[in-house]
Amino acid sequence: MAIALARETVPPALLDWIARLGPDLATLCGYQMGLCDADGAPAPPGAAPGPEGLAPQGTDPSGRSGGGKLVRPALALATAAAAGAEPKEALPAALAAELVHNFTLLHDDVMDGDRVRRHRPAAWVRFGTPLAILAGDGLLALAFEVLSSHPAPGGADVTGDLARALRQLCLGQGRDLLAASVPTATGSTPPGTPGAPGTEDTAAGAVPEISPEECLRTLEAKTGALLGFACRAGAAYAGAPPAAQEAFERFGSRLGLAFQLQDDVLGIWGRPGSTGKPALSDLRARKRSAPVVAALASGTAPGRRLAELYARPDPLGEDELALAAELVEAAGGRDWTLAEAERWREAAWESLRPLELSATGLAGLRDLTGRLTDRSS
Amino acid sequence: MAIALARETVPPALLDWIARLGPDLATLCGYQMGLCDADGAPAPPGAAPGPEGLAPQGTDPSGRSGGGKLVRPALALATAAAAGAEPKEALPAALAAELVHNFTLLHDDVMDGDRVRRHRPAAWVRFGTPLAILAGDGLLALAFEVLSSHPAPGGADVTGDLARALRQLCLGQGRDLLAASVPTATGSTPPGTPGAPGTEDTAAGAVPEISPEECLRTLEAKTGALLGFACRAGAAYAGAPPAAQEAFERFGSRLGLAFQLQDDVLGIWGRPGSTGKPALSDLRARKRSAPVVAALASGTAPGRRLAELYARPDPLGEDELALAAELVEAAGGRDWTLAEAERWREAAWESLRPLELSATGLAGLRDLTGRLTDRSS
Repeated sequence: MAIALARETVPPALLDWIARLGPDLATLCGYQMGLCDADGAPAPPGAAPGPEGLAPQGTDPSGRSGGGKLVRPALALATAAAAGAEPKEALPAALAAELVHNFTLLHDDVMDGDRVRRHRPAAWVRFGTPLAILAGDGLLALAFEVLSSHPAPGGADVTGDLARALRQLCLGQGRDLLAASVPTATGSTPPGTPGAPGTEDTAAGAVPEISPEECLRTLEAKTGALLGFACRAGAAYAGAPPAAQEAFERFGSRLGLAFQLQDDVLGIWGRPGSTGKPALSDLRARKRSAPVVAALASGTAPGRRLAELYARPDPLGEDELALAAELVEAAGGRDWTLAEAERWREAAWESLRPLELSATGLAGLRDLTGRLTDRSS
Repeated sequence: MAIALARETVPPALLDWIARLGPDLATLCGYQMGLCDADGAPAPPGAAPGPEGLAPQGTDPSGRSGGGKLVRPALALATAAAAGAEPKEALPAALAAELVHNFTLLHDDVMDGDRVRRHRPAAWVRFGTPLAILAGDGLLALAFEVLSSHPAPGGADVTGDLARALRQLCLGQGRDLLAASVPTATGSTPPGTPGAPGTEDTAAGAVPEISPEECLRTLEAKTGALLGFACRAGAAYAGAPPAAQEAFERFGSRLGLAFQLQDDVLGIWGRPGSTGKPALSDLRARKRSAPVVAALASGTAPGRRLAELYARPDPLGEDELALAAELVEAAGGRDWTLAEAERWREAAWESLRPLELSATGLAGLRDLTGRLTDRSS
């Protein structure tokens, strides 16, 4: 229900808001969000629902994906329902969360040098780095504008909540940048990366060891914070008291961590047809995703062989990439990540227990998260 | 007085806030703001005031500049005083404006490919593009956090005001990006610029004609919006009624336009020792700054010769740069820009007339703007 409502109400509202950025940035943002193609031609409304009733991420060969999966908006709306309000009351929270999500995608793709997003060239590849950066900035402005122009009941400080979530996102991405990747000579090195031509070499060239615990903290900041905001703000617009807002925030944050762990598994073993990215893409970019971190920290022989592969200065060939995936698995990286995902999913539900929600409210949230869990975004 | 208060209170508060971004981003932000060097060594407090009692922009050869001129914080504090409050009441407005100002500098330098800022390598040159983008994002988060954690009296929506100003900044920078520069083969082309290696060529490669009026609108959005916010929020924290907030916003916006016009003159004819940039830097980057736009639109023979120079695909040599500056002047570009700066300065004061401010309040603002006008930032 929350998904259907999100798919019906969020894309048109997003189009209205991004129009405030002027035609050029609006086209870029619409392309980023799957609402139009790179020339601004609109995606058909409600186009191509995926097998679970979710809009797929860019499976439409025309390059229009009907607005993505809207995970965060759906969570905001479902939270409002669980808190006892009409889900549509939380539309400002839904919009703000989706605007900020797309801001992170725009900027992260530039920073990480990721060239493909949702089966299509990333926005910075298609429109250039400067406009992609600027469009991300514009989406942030709109997110705060949405919240300010629709104050939450009871004086809830939703803009402050978003600002704190945004800072967490930055902290997480910062840890990721400094720890997650080794600059290589391949095309996946982002422009301006330390070590790339035109910039001086800095500390990021050295790759520090990171523990599985640090990795979890980073993922919680990078993904948990925004899902936590979506749920907290959904509850705030529903008029829930502060203690309930906090419980819903914890719920969203832990759920986001679970989603991201699962996403990290897909980043290595996911089929390109469903992830929208090339096979083994996280290994190709030599990312320190959760399974890789766990494997490197495993103290096993496969973990040590993986470390040797990751330390090689030259790009890995296809055979070596396949070997790396096998080593991650043999070192226990995949199992650890899936077990952690399960643990955090359970912890998420645990955080709602004190609220004694109605069976209907809980069922809506359970239904939604079940659908989202098949393929997190 | 507002300058002294800003220099005393703003840098320590900024250091406290940026510490929330973690040590790496805090060092980058501190470097950007002139509060520390690239290794994080702090600038001496109150170091090296400039000839007008303002901290100069990076004249300290150690690379530490004591925190910049703090134009926006000083304006916010002086506005609060003019509105009848203690200036320090407006400290949240002062901090938010300065944080957002440095966000724009960080991102604009990446987008514009400007390699020098305040006599030092721009942050993206020193720390790499990804961290510079991320630090800008983090400063935005902090700006909204400052405002949210110190609500303005009377329920004034200062976060909404900041969000709208931020959107204006993006609109202005967008117009600038699409109109202001020609991609060249020199090192000043930003990474990821359309036409640069690694990105596809897009519409930004074609340079549209822009009228002097469009140029003024762009400058008002790029510089006026944030000074307008600083003054509006300064008045809001002083408890001024909405009509007064609007009048102060108009004042700041017009004053900002005047400052920027003067800055555009300095971007061609300013001494490197005082601008912190190489001589003729705006011509070197082939920017469409106000004097250039006016010259190109002048219909004069020098204007046409300038257009030919600007259309050349190869970088301009030193002799040609000097010639370009002469052509801009001969076509009336310098005179027009200085006259417009004067016109908007007068219009700024005009917008305060309905408020019937006290002589003391006005005197403080007049004193401040007089000091700032010698060299806008």
